[in-house]
Amino acid sequence: MPVNLKQLAELLGLSQTTVSRALNGYPEVNAETRQRVLQAVRETGYRPNRAAQRLATGKAYSIGLVMPIAPGIDSDIHFGEFLAGLGEAAIKHDFHFVLNPSAPEDEEATFRRLAASGTVDAVFLAYMRANDPRIAMLKSLSMPFVVHGRSIGGPQDYPFLDIDNTRAFYDAAKLLLQLGHQRIALINGLEYLTFSIRRKKGLMRALEEWGLRLDEALVHHSVMTDEYGYRSMQSFLQQPDPPTAVLCSSTVLALGAVRAINQAGLTIGADISVIAHDDVLPMLKPENFSVPLTTTRSSLRAAGARIATRLIGGILDSGDYPEQELWRAELIVRASTGPAPGR
Amino acid sequence: MPVNLKQLAELLGLSQTTVSRALNGYPEVNAETRQRVLQAVRETGYRPNRAAQRLATGKAYSIGLVMPIAPGIDSDIHFGEFLAGLGEAAIKHDFHFVLNPSAPEDEEATFRRLAASGTVDAVFLAYMRANDPRIAMLKSLSMPFVVHGRSIGGPQDYPFLDIDNTRAFYDAAKLLLQLGHQRIALINGLEYLTFSIRRKKGLMRALEEWGLRLDEALVHHSVMTDEYGYRSMQSFLQQPDPPTAVLCSSTVLALGAVRAINQAGLTIGADISVIAHDDVLPMLKPENFSVPLTTTRSSLRAAGARIATRLIGGILDSGDYPEQELWRAELIVRASTGPAPGR
Repeated sequence: MPVNLKQLAELLGLSQTTVSRALNGYPEVNAETRQRVLQAVRETGYRPNRAAQRLATGKAYSIGLVMPIAPGIDSDIHFGEFLAGLGEAAIKHDFHFVLNPSAPEDEEATFRRLAASGTVDAVFLAYMRANDPRIAMLKSLSMPFVVHGRSIGGPQDYPFLDIDNTRAFYDAAKLLLQLGHQRIALINGLEYLTFSIRRKKGLMRALEEWGLRLDEALVHHSVMTDEYGYRSMQSFLQQPDPPTAVLCSSTVLALGAVRAINQAGLTIGADISVIAHDDVLPMLKPENFSVPLTTTRSSLRAAGARIATRLIGGILDSGDYPEQELWRAELIVRASTGPAPGR
Repeated sequence: MPVNLKQLAELLGLSQTTVSRALNGYPEVNAETRQRVLQAVRETGYRPNRAAQRLATGKAYSIGLVMPIAPGIDSDIHFGEFLAGLGEAAIKHDFHFVLNPSAPEDEEATFRRLAASGTVDAVFLAYMRANDPRIAMLKSLSMPFVVHGRSIGGPQDYPFLDIDNTRAFYDAAKLLLQLGHQRIALINGLEYLTFSIRRKKGLMRALEEWGLRLDEALVHHSVMTDEYGYRSMQSFLQQPDPPTAVLCSSTVLALGAVRAINQAGLTIGADISVIAHDDVLPMLKPENFSVPLTTTRSSLRAAGARIATRLIGGILDSGDYPEQELWRAELIVRASTGPAPGR
């Protein structure tokens, strides 16, 4: 049973006011007393009353999110997984989220209202686009923020966490080229999102190093569902000169692609190689595909947890975190990649 | 460009105070004036300032959610889809959500803090269990709530929206029995959740009507991922007297089950029949399975939208909604169900 403020004060032989001021960082409490208080907090598991803290500090202990929503916008399993990561970190510090649904065209106004409401201490931005106008908007709000992903174009002078998408798909394409593949298809996310742009760039860069050029007829962009993975792969296989390998921007897309390949009577890893980006979605593990999938792996949940940790660290002025982080995805080779047919 | 309060008042030849009082339902404004104001609001697209409304009405225009989280708890794609539905309705009324991550054992305290915080007008409860103690707790908070699902045991005297899970799996099992199946397996959600309990009951009821009994060796409970669907089906097929049909509580479970069936060299719809519950997840459509899946269908997004509409209607005292709703899932027959082998 954790102690309350009164018990903590008695234990320390201090007044409740002094303990409270020590906890809330008031300068009139000397360093030695503050140390004693913090030590006792650790030992007793004392948990301060959030409502009282809110009054004392003016903080909301809350992070604002904008959830894009419209009749035509499907829910995104990647969003749920990211949210689980945010929650995992928030719970450690007793933070919560204010989630504002917004039509994409109202997003800027929604962020402004959120910042003006006083209900959040920081905001988080995702689904980055090229030359994303929301970066300048967030800077103007004078409220801490962290971007998940990065814009393309404009100065890179804002806090972000991104994975190195160019490098991930460069690495994946290089593996395929080393195996002798020359016609490599790409089933990608929506065309205007920066992760899609960078993954395509990674593929192009690897092809160029091999003296090859990307055939635009082998590139599809769509929302990342099983259905689009299936349709894209089916249309690639119907081309006169079909690809011998395919990169998929999500294991969900790969699910559909694999079905199209199976239906065409082709063998994965022999007739055609498949590599997918794996966000480590618990619902769908690449090692459990009938032919285990080669992947570029980076946990979306870990990214969520890290972003929440950085935001909260900034709000509480605790810990020292880098402003910008670029995580490298790990290339994990499984049975879905093999030599190009005829080699 | 929508007008502001000042412009709206000028247009009507009324004071800003009168317009504001009319909008916020103060009784001193007569019905005729209120009608004129509402008419002008519709014509001009005037959008009241939420911050001002908050002060005037004491409402937060916000719904509270508790997100269960722990290192061992995976994100749930069903939660994301439901949230999209909640958001779809909330956006129409300019409502937002306060999302509190909570360890399962702290959930009750989290709800209490949420209710005491003044940041939400209503809360929403899900993942119902048998004899769920949270119902009594929510009643004690004197704050509106709607339950997604229903408890089992205790009086059913609280607002809920549920689908008729017993009926759904009764209907599904009946179809299989009519096709001559006698050994029907069940890959279900977690054992303590009421939707799982009711679906199992539906299967048992249908079997009883045919003079058959459920073989407990043909029932598995787990979180609803591809991996557990695969493992469960694989273990069923290794039994000395394997099932000729299987019910899955999610299309995600069916995904794994189908893979296990294919790997065993069996043909779906001929050697073994499959029926899954379909929450209408955009990521995974039953009609796109290699053998299109027979399903019991009920949209989770529609349920989310309906619950938010009911909560908001109660907060704004607008509209008249039933306290309790039981939706019937639709049985949709596709190619994954056929006559029992040997018939």
